[in-house]
Amino acid sequence: MKAAFVGLGLIGGSLALTLRRRGFIDYAIGVDLNPGHAKSALDLGLADEVTTLQEAAEKSDVVILSIPVDAAKNIISELLEVIPEHGVVADMGSTKAGICQVVSHHPKRGRFVASHPIAGTENTGPQAAFDSLFQGKPAIICEREKSDKDALQLVEDLYAALDMPLIYMEAMEHDLHLAYVSHLSHITSFCLGFTVLEVEKDEKNIFDLAGSGFASTARLAKSSPEMWAPIFEQNKDHLLRVMDEYMKNLSAFKTMIESDDHSGLSGFMEKANDIRRILDGMELKHQKNSIELAK
Amino acid sequence: MKAAFVGLGLIGGSLALTLRRRGFIDYAIGVDLNPGHAKSALDLGLADEVTTLQEAAEKSDVVILSIPVDAAKNIISELLEVIPEHGVVADMGSTKAGICQVVSHHPKRGRFVASHPIAGTENTGPQAAFDSLFQGKPAIICEREKSDKDALQLVEDLYAALDMPLIYMEAMEHDLHLAYVSHLSHITSFCLGFTVLEVEKDEKNIFDLAGSGFASTARLAKSSPEMWAPIFEQNKDHLLRVMDEYMKNLSAFKTMIESDDHSGLSGFMEKANDIRRILDGMELKHQKNSIELAK
Repeated sequence: MKAAFVGLGLIGGSLALTLRRRGFIDYAIGVDLNPGHAKSALDLGLADEVTTLQEAAEKSDVVILSIPVDAAKNIISELLEVIPEHGVVADMGSTKAGICQVVSHHPKRGRFVASHPIAGTENTGPQAAFDSLFQGKPAIICEREKSDKDALQLVEDLYAALDMPLIYMEAMEHDLHLAYVSHLSHITSFCLGFTVLEVEKDEKNIFDLAGSGFASTARLAKSSPEMWAPIFEQNKDHLLRVMDEYMKNLSAFKTMIESDDHSGLSGFMEKANDIRRILDGMELKHQKNSIELAK
Repeated sequence: MKAAFVGLGLIGGSLALTLRRRGFIDYAIGVDLNPGHAKSALDLGLADEVTTLQEAAEKSDVVILSIPVDAAKNIISELLEVIPEHGVVADMGSTKAGICQVVSHHPKRGRFVASHPIAGTENTGPQAAFDSLFQGKPAIICEREKSDKDALQLVEDLYAALDMPLIYMEAMEHDLHLAYVSHLSHITSFCLGFTVLEVEKDEKNIFDLAGSGFASTARLAKSSPEMWAPIFEQNKDHLLRVMDEYMKNLSAFKTMIESDDHSGLSGFMEKANDIRRILDGMELKHQKNSIELAK
């Protein structure tokens, strides 16, 4: 199978790498607006050739979009026009309602599959790509019933090749839940990184005194603004609501510190501790998925 | 050397384990108010015996306090009364100004060394103890000039045995910087965990949809309320100020999402991205310390 990878960053690059190793594709055409990324992708062997979006789309069986969600939304309609009749477009973006809406009345809507692999790191570019990024992690497909059967099947097979178990849901539902479990934590992390850089005038103190806890909490503050600004914009309504909730809780926490409310603080943290059950369960599940799927 | 480990949790247990393996101590006396922890510490071989605080203090060369900072502050004065003449007390707490102030006029102030190993995980109890927890990470000693030379030397040797490079600073300075690079990130993480559990009514959605980014950012929400409530209380003034700063930034971020301020959002995130330089540098430094010190 011939695949076009539009966007050769962490996600696009890792997809190209893994899908080739698993034998799902035998030819990878790369497309990237950043000439440096395009060159690196060739050098790293992620892509067999790099070309324009139009040319790549015309000669591929499947086009995989791993680009900022605003860019994906902007090009999807024209892209559907140029793909061959049997061609499929799958996008990998972190918001789904916007792109699904844009294509909802497109005559070739059936050739599009809206998806989201729940995998990533805080690193960007083709150099960040690696083979085990997706292994055992979940992927979401939205509005499955609006995709043609064969197009849906191709994308389901693609995720099977990546060893990613599938979850199906509506686009709005996806965006709501992702606001809770992904987008909010990016915001809290960006704000943590920003604040600490601002208050800690002497960087050396962060360097010397911060431990693994800070590193873990601030890690997402390394994420790409180019990727994340459009996600926040497209998921604005859900995010504003959940940010209000977060700020309300932060404010309550501050009041408890201010008023020496030991039992209030302890009670709040005990409730928050409940996240352990879920995080530990997630880790077990991903390990289990990896083992079972690798069998 | 005979050491008393008061508090047999993650820190106390890991200290007992590592200091014995490195030959720094040959006998470990455990003290823990939690009978389950005391029994586990015996079963795991972390302690050779468990006994009362008074008995342990009387017969040890060094007493190591790895207990909540309010408890340490409460017992330190009496503890200094019962240790032998050559005995030393070192505390491992995450706040230093409170305990230093309590002992400042104590006739045996010289036998106390205020310290803080910058190491930890979100896990608690003797079962969480492990050998490599401290390797290559920094440790802080406060008010070195107020400790007797031999007492200071013993604690410096102890940290050398753990392969921890030392940093010296004043207690207030310690608490200020730790508010920035450690305590704040615990608060943002507790609030993230709390908020997501609250808004995401169906836990299964967190379980299915959260990725490694959420897990990393919410990890500290698993931390022990018993340890952290007293830290927040003792570092109240610094924390209230830095929380204000964090909330101000969060509010600004929200306004930019609200008003579709794409360039504002991007600019904010680009500034936050600067944390990469520091986090990557920290990681390199810890690796380098581990390698150099292990030589």
